[in-house]
Amino acid sequence: MHLLIIGAAGMIGHKLAEKVAATGMIGDRKVDVLTLADVIEPEAATDFDGERRAMAVDLSQGGTAERMIADQPDVVVHLAAIVSGEAEADFDKGYRINLDGTRMLFDAIRLTQGYVPRVVYASSLAVFGAPFPDRIPDDFHLTPLTSYGTQKAIGELLLDDYSRRGFLDGVGIRFPTICIRPGKPNKAASGFFSGILREPLNGQDAVLPVPDDVRHWHASPRAAVGFIEHAASMDTARLGHARNLTMPGVSATVGDQIAALRAVAGDGAVAHIRRQPDETIARIVAGWPRDLDTARARDMGFKAETSFREIIQIYVDDELGGVLPSEPASPR
Amino acid sequence: MHLLIIGAAGMIGHKLAEKVAATGMIGDRKVDVLTLADVIEPEAATDFDGERRAMAVDLSQGGTAERMIADQPDVVVHLAAIVSGEAEADFDKGYRINLDGTRMLFDAIRLTQGYVPRVVYASSLAVFGAPFPDRIPDDFHLTPLTSYGTQKAIGELLLDDYSRRGFLDGVGIRFPTICIRPGKPNKAASGFFSGILREPLNGQDAVLPVPDDVRHWHASPRAAVGFIEHAASMDTARLGHARNLTMPGVSATVGDQIAALRAVAGDGAVAHIRRQPDETIARIVAGWPRDLDTARARDMGFKAETSFREIIQIYVDDELGGVLPSEPASPR
Repeated sequence: MHLLIIGAAGMIGHKLAEKVAATGMIGDRKVDVLTLADVIEPEAATDFDGERRAMAVDLSQGGTAERMIADQPDVVVHLAAIVSGEAEADFDKGYRINLDGTRMLFDAIRLTQGYVPRVVYASSLAVFGAPFPDRIPDDFHLTPLTSYGTQKAIGELLLDDYSRRGFLDGVGIRFPTICIRPGKPNKAASGFFSGILREPLNGQDAVLPVPDDVRHWHASPRAAVGFIEHAASMDTARLGHARNLTMPGVSATVGDQIAALRAVAGDGAVAHIRRQPDETIARIVAGWPRDLDTARARDMGFKAETSFREIIQIYVDDELGGVLPSEPASPR
Repeated sequence: MHLLIIGAAGMIGHKLAEKVAATGMIGDRKVDVLTLADVIEPEAATDFDGERRAMAVDLSQGGTAERMIADQPDVVVHLAAIVSGEAEADFDKGYRINLDGTRMLFDAIRLTQGYVPRVVYASSLAVFGAPFPDRIPDDFHLTPLTSYGTQKAIGELLLDDYSRRGFLDGVGIRFPTICIRPGKPNKAASGFFSGILREPLNGQDAVLPVPDDVRHWHASPRAAVGFIEHAASMDTARLGHARNLTMPGVSATVGDQIAALRAVAGDGAVAHIRRQPDETIARIVAGWPRDLDTARARDMGFKAETSFREIIQIYVDDELGGVLPSEPASPR
């Protein structure tokens, strides 16, 4: 089987590629050829036993989509996107990559006679916009409040229509906020959700810009990779014409996150969190989903963590080799 | 004020143009310049007292959108679309006109510095797809089951995003099925809803392909014009970022329709209805909305009929000069 990962240099794409390289599988399907595409040539999965290909691509260029699918990969995982902040700052670029790039990919597939690949499409909770109920049901309307969310919602509609018409076999997955993101702090408004755990676990200080009662929806990077694996190999007959699913996750307050950090790493770790209220970030986050009913995805076999302690433990296992850095507790 | 109607040769566009010509107003706004655009040069509103312009346009052509908005009309009513059946039969054409044509219009407006017109966008109940509850709430998700519905739903998302960004001031209106459509019978699956009333009112036979308990959502052509007038002149501040509204209407069964026909035109008219079950049409119609909660639109001042008798009377008044054709009742 030939697997194409578009956006393979991103955090989730990289982890997916590494796992496919290690296991030779995606879900229950054996991978013989693994093609990794991104704006820069992806470096992951160099130890893959099968045939590994890498391509540097510009999704907004005519011909790119045709080139990527020329060998008719059986599964296409489409993770590439201009992220929320950039899509808001650069209107044209966001629409060019997130909408036109996605549509060119779907159209290249549509126009290839007899080719109907599984397409796993990365969507986002940004398709939902306030006001919404405390717990968002599976049949809640999409009223995105960002251009990124709009582009993702349009991609969902196209995925449904192209699947219904038999041009491709799509599964859209609305990722939770991924926590704990490995690596350095970033400027994303959501960055602190990972930062207040990751930095203390590494013996460093972290800033918390919102109150402890702020609630949000999370899953680990390991769960995110699992969603894609399952979407790549599941039986799509049960989805009917509604191909997009809100992924399961953990609804937790910042206070829940901190309690879990204390349970895993002790008071010393928690003491690294410095409260520094930021009105702007608090206002942005107030417009984000707090909790979601994901019965449909769970029924279809998608799985995430069930507690924040588990989410933290996954970070310790996957990023720190299972060991907390020893450091003297330095409460202040 | 300058009003541009795109799709002015269609049934609703024509009626809107005639009303503007007769009153010199749209809603509570005075119209000085009236531009009518369609694929064929529209013939309506020739007696308009203000300045009347007409243009034959191809929405899918580059430059068309720029040409239409060159004089910066204050209100743009966008009714032009490839209809459901044709968009399903010709995938490329539907996306080219309904999606690309709409986006080119919105982008031409966006790229005109300092120009933020009111844009009234014609959407459709086709944005909803079964399964849905008996009564569809205002916050129900859009899962269209046709390419036409998909294209309309994408247009709604773009309207919201372009409004939020301040590029235009949009109001999207999801029209009910328009009943009674004047003119000849057509091949649309929904055609019988009008046909079983219109043909008998004109002393002719009509075919009823579905059972009497089939329920659907209707409003008159006069109500449809009223929706556009209100959308063109309403205060949009109350809409917030959710610019698309399900329009009010009458939820009625075919049996309700027939009872109203009997009340207005007698048993002789009803005797013109010939039951001829058609499995295909019954199956298509089974996937359509039966009833909708339109509290939001009603709160915003949108009005429709409240009974089917009223809908029939409007046809008699507006299309038959208020007089039923006298003919001997010929029950069979």
